[in-house]
Amino acid sequence: MSLPLLNCDMGESFGNWKMGLDDEVMPYVDCANIACGFHASDPDIMRRTVALAVQHGVRVGAHPAYPDLQGFGRRSLACSPREVEDMMLYQIGALEGMCRAEGTTVSYVKPHGALYNDMARDPELLRGAMRAVLAYDCTLPLLAMATADPAPMRELAEEMGVTLWFETFADRAYDPQGRLVSRREPGAVHHDRETIVAQAVTLAKGEALTANDGSALGLAADTLCVHGDNAESVAAVRAIRDAFDGLARE
Amino acid sequence: MSLPLLNCDMGESFGNWKMGLDDEVMPYVDCANIACGFHASDPDIMRRTVALAVQHGVRVGAHPAYPDLQGFGRRSLACSPREVEDMMLYQIGALEGMCRAEGTTVSYVKPHGALYNDMARDPELLRGAMRAVLAYDCTLPLLAMATADPAPMRELAEEMGVTLWFETFADRAYDPQGRLVSRREPGAVHHDRETIVAQAVTLAKGEALTANDGSALGLAADTLCVHGDNAESVAAVRAIRDAFDGLARE
Amino acid sequence: MSLPLLNCDMGESFGNWKMGLDDEVMPYVDCANIACGFHASDPDIMRRTVALAVQHGVRVGAHPAYPDLQGFGRRSLACSPREVEDMMLYQIGALEGMCRAEGTTVSYVKPHGALYNDMARDPELLRGAMRAVLAYDCTLPLLAMATADPAPMRELAEEMGVTLWFETFADRAYDPQGRLVSRREPGAVHHDRETIVAQAVTLAKGEALTANDGSALGLAADTLCVHGDNAESVAAVRAIRDAFDGLARE
Amino acid sequence: MSLPLLNCDMGESFGNWKMGLDDEVMPYVDCANIACGFHASDPDIMRRTVALAVQHGVRVGAHPAYPDLQGFGRRSLACSPREVEDMMLYQIGALEGMCRAEGTTVSYVKPHGALYNDMARDPELLRGAMRAVLAYDCTLPLLAMATADPAPMRELAEEMGVTLWFETFADRAYDPQGRLVSRREPGAVHHDRETIVAQAVTLAKGEALTANDGSALGLAADTLCVHGDNAESVAAVRAIRDAFDGLARE
Repeated sequence: MSLPLLNCDMGESFGNWKMGLDDEVMPYVDCANIACGFHASDPDIMRRTVALAVQHGVRVGAHPAYPDLQGFGRRSLACSPREVEDMMLYQIGALEGMCRAEGTTVSYVKPHGALYNDMARDPELLRGAMRAVLAYDCTLPLLAMATADPAPMRELAEEMGVTLWFETFADRAYDPQGRLVSRREPGAVHHDRETIVAQAVTLAKGEALTANDGSALGLAADTLCVHGDNAESVAAVRAIRDAFDGLARE
Repeated sequence: MSLPLLNCDMGESFGNWKMGLDDEVMPYVDCANIACGFHASDPDIMRRTVALAVQHGVRVGAHPAYPDLQGFGRRSLACSPREVEDMMLYQIGALEGMCRAEGTTVSYVKPHGALYNDMARDPELLRGAMRAVLAYDCTLPLLAMATADPAPMRELAEEMGVTLWFETFADRAYDPQGRLVSRREPGAVHHDRETIVAQAVTLAKGEALTANDGSALGLAADTLCVHGDNAESVAAVRAIRDAFDGLARE
Repeated sequence: MSLPLLNCDMGESFGNWKMGLDDEVMPYVDCANIACGFHASDPDIMRRTVALAVQHGVRVGAHPAYPDLQGFGRRSLACSPREVEDMMLYQIGALEGMCRAEGTTVSYVKPHGALYNDMARDPELLRGAMRAVLAYDCTLPLLAMATADPAPMRELAEEMGVTLWFETFADRAYDPQGRLVSRREPGAVHHDRETIVAQAVTLAKGEALTANDGSALGLAADTLCVHGDNAESVAAVRAIRDAFDGLARE
Repeated sequence: MSLPLLNCDMGESFGNWKMGLDDEVMPYVDCANIACGFHASDPDIMRRTVALAVQHGVRVGAHPAYPDLQGFGRRSLACSPREVEDMMLYQIGALEGMCRAEGTTVSYVKPHGALYNDMARDPELLRGAMRAVLAYDCTLPLLAMATADPAPMRELAEEMGVTLWFETFADRAYDPQGRLVSRREPGAVHHDRETIVAQAVTLAKGEALTANDGSALGLAADTLCVHGDNAESVAAVRAIRDAFDGLARE
């Protein structure tokens, strides 16, 4: 069985401000999505985070975003596809600078926050993001949200020549179309560790989830997003890692 | 004769603000020092400037700076050597992102403004800059101001394993130590085109300049800094290029 | 006859980058909309621009924007009404700091670019902008785009207790709803000085314009936006000023 | 007895990043030095912090800084006196915008970090800071570090017409000149609560401290800087407040 890779947002501190338990969660993940200075991080924090990933044998991914430190990259900024393409090239390259100094390389790209959502909604922005990845290194996978109907995005990726990794969540409820239920609705976020691990295992086995209307939902899960915000989420990551280790031994 | 390479600051526009006659001056230079977004430029302008350099067969150099758009990187910022190292890695990498998309690569590094001056003054900052260049690509030349006594900097470069390119100016008066005469003093800047071309040719031939106290001043001139700010400076660059073409034919 | 006040965007330089012919156009306008550092300007330029306005007896208005220097405040940023309110308070206050040092005061508020357009489209953002103006100084007029049906905006302003100044353009074609024709369509922008002056005079007399479908369009015109971008637009401002002086003598 | 006012840096969060226990420490201080967006804070956080100060009857002070979020305003930036003057006017005004919305006003100015230190070292920068305060509101006190020989600064303040408040620290060791002992030296920072309270009381009574060479050191103490970084420092503030309440009853 090919288990989904565990990816986690990292390097989200900025200057004197701390965020995230990177040291605690790094040992349990496969992929570190490292902020590139536009929504979080700065050159010193990027470098330290890359070094931490290298120390734990974790793959480094670029986590580019709209230029919005105050809004943490969570506010849509009306950019053209070309602006998206260029800001992604800039940020991927900047992170590569840190990787070179620490003996590794950027292995994949996961757009952040509003940019990630906007590109799922607007095919022209998605094409811009794909052009950036292709121009930078045509072998780099681009992460995109898994959906119930991945065919259109798969076709676009094939047309462009980009490798997609579909991303899923273990701690979020899905609607029948495979979209995350809005955080404003009850039951949108799973807090119970057993529920989270069970959803992770279901995704890893390639079995169907139960959407929030009770229907069966099949999702491609190349990678699973986990969180290192606090002790509770780190504990969930360890539990998922343990469960995946069990699956690997089966 | 190995002629000094003509280098020129480029890509110094920002967003809607224009600066510099990049289109006019690019055909006559060897090396484009491209701003990396910290003192000027943005991802879109960086990419267009790299494309322009590629079109004219001009080498692309990173022109990293302190993070100070308002001050155009001309105000010293009290950074640690490690902060200098990391901000340079970030900026060189970001420019490389643009180079990859345009089919070229970063070929050298010239720190900008206050960073360039501070690193000439403070050996620890210079070491930080050298570590950045080495970590990024140990074959990249680092530009540094030529002086009357280049031995200490040469020894440091040799110890660190960095290639130095000494930079000179054709339109500036020098003091006997090989430092630029301050712009606040009379005669600091040459405005007459013949004087500028004559100084460029003297430097190219490896002959001594006359310092501002009348003494002879020998300077290593791997590269010569020229300017594309306005029509007059572009005309001077063309005249230097013509003179150098003449020297090359001799 | 109460003539529309001529307002012009000013102080749009930033650091070393110059934009706009503020010195040339200031003598001919009534109101200077001064950028507040979020889309353009910086503290030094703001202060010089306020001083120039004072010298010519021109009223100073705050020209707040989304925080986006690279995009010149022309890209929508998905902000909450409270974020809009607070960023406007910040920018109005910052400009007031400059006004105090130059012996004047902020006299009105004109949101800039994408913020201006978003608030015309979204009543909640408009309420946020109105709350900022009220909280700062309930006597300050807020500029808003004139439309064919100003009643809804007038009612909201009355409910909130805000003074509105409706703004019109002399160099732009209107559609029948009183919206500016998109710059992408032919005939959207008038370049002919006589046409511009004629439209200004029509607006000043309170007569109907001809919309781009040939219908008559009545617009309230408390103020008229003019431009100081280049010599041509400054000449148009002088011509409008001459025409208005003529109307005033009638 | 006129007790020193307790002042504390506040509003040092930024966007999603949290810093400082403002809610916990606000009830025990007299003066809140609120960051103005250049080294920390943003319009939303500034406004919430002003509202919190108003709720507890605490005076609001502007805490302007060099523009350096990454360095938290702790890195010197080589600015001209005029640049310092204008950036202070901008930041004081911006904070006033928030004060107007919350029914209070800026009551004093305390420059932050490297700006505070630079202005203690360079009389021209101090004059720039004084001009800003005077131009904004000539009754606003400006905080400056107390020294063993306050006469020169007092004379300058008198010449300029500025009110100075000398600031002291209860948790730091002093050298015989009344300068803070560098944090790099042993014994520079007091961690023991009794020592801190004792130094605060000594300053409040106008008695001499013991400098780090054993000599007696008299310091004018218009205000005492306290910290709300963590639970321990908040407990120290409560203990100082209790001690001052006791002195007030004597």
